[in-house]
Amino acid sequence: MSKAMFEPIKEELKLLEEGLLNSVSSDKDIINEIASHVVRAGGKRLRPALSLLSAKAGKNYSAKKVLPLAVSLELIHTATLAHDDVIDGAGTRRGAATLNTKWGNQIAILGGDFLFARAFAMVAKQNYAPYVNYRISELIANLCEGEILQDHSAHVALKDYNVYYERIKNKTADFLEVATELGGFVSGVTKEEQEGLRRFGHAIGMAFQVTDDILDLEKTEEELGKPAAHDLVCGIVTLPVIYTLKESKRAGELAAIVTDEHMTLEMEDRAIEIVRESGGIDFAKSEVKRFLDDARNSIPATIPNDVRDSFLMVADFIASRSF
Amino acid sequence: MSKAMFEPIKEELKLLEEGLLNSVSSDKDIINEIASHVVRAGGKRLRPALSLLSAKAGKNYSAKKVLPLAVSLELIHTATLAHDDVIDGAGTRRGAATLNTKWGNQIAILGGDFLFARAFAMVAKQNYAPYVNYRISELIANLCEGEILQDHSAHVALKDYNVYYERIKNKTADFLEVATELGGFVSGVTKEEQEGLRRFGHAIGMAFQVTDDILDLEKTEEELGKPAAHDLVCGIVTLPVIYTLKESKRAGELAAIVTDEHMTLEMEDRAIEIVRESGGIDFAKSEVKRFLDDARNSIPATIPNDVRDSFLMVADFIASRSF
Repeated sequence: MSKAMFEPIKEELKLLEEGLLNSVSSDKDIINEIASHVVRAGGKRLRPALSLLSAKAGKNYSAKKVLPLAVSLELIHTATLAHDDVIDGAGTRRGAATLNTKWGNQIAILGGDFLFARAFAMVAKQNYAPYVNYRISELIANLCEGEILQDHSAHVALKDYNVYYERIKNKTADFLEVATELGGFVSGVTKEEQEGLRRFGHAIGMAFQVTDDILDLEKTEEELGKPAAHDLVCGIVTLPVIYTLKESKRAGELAAIVTDEHMTLEMEDRAIEIVRESGGIDFAKSEVKRFLDDARNSIPATIPNDVRDSFLMVADFIASRSF
Repeated sequence: MSKAMFEPIKEELKLLEEGLLNSVSSDKDIINEIASHVVRAGGKRLRPALSLLSAKAGKNYSAKKVLPLAVSLELIHTATLAHDDVIDGAGTRRGAATLNTKWGNQIAILGGDFLFARAFAMVAKQNYAPYVNYRISELIANLCEGEILQDHSAHVALKDYNVYYERIKNKTADFLEVATELGGFVSGVTKEEQEGLRRFGHAIGMAFQVTDDILDLEKTEEELGKPAAHDLVCGIVTLPVIYTLKESKRAGELAAIVTDEHMTLEMEDRAIEIVRESGGIDFAKSEVKRFLDDARNSIPATIPNDVRDSFLMVADFIASRSF
């Protein structure tokens, strides 16, 4: 991710890091140690960055006003990752030891809850409209629904694009949509701008998750910094696989693999080969392009040029990212 | 728990059950099934009942206004129990199968998060003062801190009452304090009444948790509806044990047991015997009495007689409860 992409908010991103550490501080050493470990472990900070950029489009922009929102979005994201890592038994995340590896599942579960609580406390302290609090709460409920539904439909040879799209909307796109929409909202954008920002966040989020699902099938563990073909092994059927199940002559063979709860490494390799040779990856890449076109077309015409340039760079970054 | 105790709010308690089910409803069947299972599994509803009773003391009492608060407190409590059950690997709770037993750890973790989110959404939708949202968020952060600290100090032969009291304040008393204080607050009690209600909730909460810790040592699994001597086995040192570690001639023997991470059933029985014979249980019971006296003395003089009578019955119930 190039630095230029976030040029208009480079000062705010420094304040964000401070704000994140302050938001989890406690008078208990062990709490500080746990919370700062997970917050420091970093990541792309995509959600807060999108909310900060969107805020720049508003006539009442104030870093002081929007930063707590940006901090709380990153805290919520970090909390969900801490819980995901317990569920997946993941050992590393973003190159650092996960909470469950370093301190055990108990601390990882409670630590995630602590981050959720501090995120809400942060938002509650501001004088945001109740809409902001409500939208963030419902976002988390939707994230959980998305994950539960994904688990519930594991190892099913899904052939319905809409089920997949609804799932990744819940899981990823809603979050980016909330970041862009609320960032603008708290800074006083117009109704039209708010809707444009919302649609931009949604489309970027859809493109981001489809790309993630492509990379899961294309890349090695080393390249990803997390286990490769993780979805496939867990029976989570993603867009390239759904296309192949619908369109390929070898759909039957693929269906037999994805519905098998005891997938061997050999089966995994064969499934990836079938998907690639059947054009599943290419199809998913064309869908990413479509979402990114939507995203570019959704950027409100009235926002400042430097913010527009950043948004276009975000779209380019998602189109070309490889990690 | 006798019905008369909650006589002034018996209609509200019926509405509470409806409100709880509505608050977790979803257009996805599996989410409804999971969330309604855990909500229906019931419990004492002590937190919402205390908030409803306290609300009755306010000049602006409205069931419609306070019920969402009561619902959200019970959702938060239920969420923390769902996560505790994952941590403890508990199979049953309140006589029903836990989420982790019925659907696995993933669903139990995400289900807990979902309940937290819906609790916040419920509060966010109301026109409560920001103080309410903030107090509830901080409550959850404190609950997590309390649990993390408890885990961190497991298998330590603690001799400091204050460390124990701070822990049970975080873990239990803060929650009951928030229930009574905010119940009154949203119904427009006076500042003095609010403070009295807060102190009543705190003292009741301390008495409740010390009683819980006594029962853990006194009762069988059958009587409790959950594993007996659970704290002891997990190395969680509670008030009767701390007293014994400080005062008994057999403190050394007890310390050797509680600091042993591989406690046998025989060691467990011996520890309980030492605590009982050294007067640890009696001391803890005298502390419960002290907290209940505080509680009774904290009830604001200006609240309605039927609410006062209920509060006094709550205190009596805690003094005499055996489950």
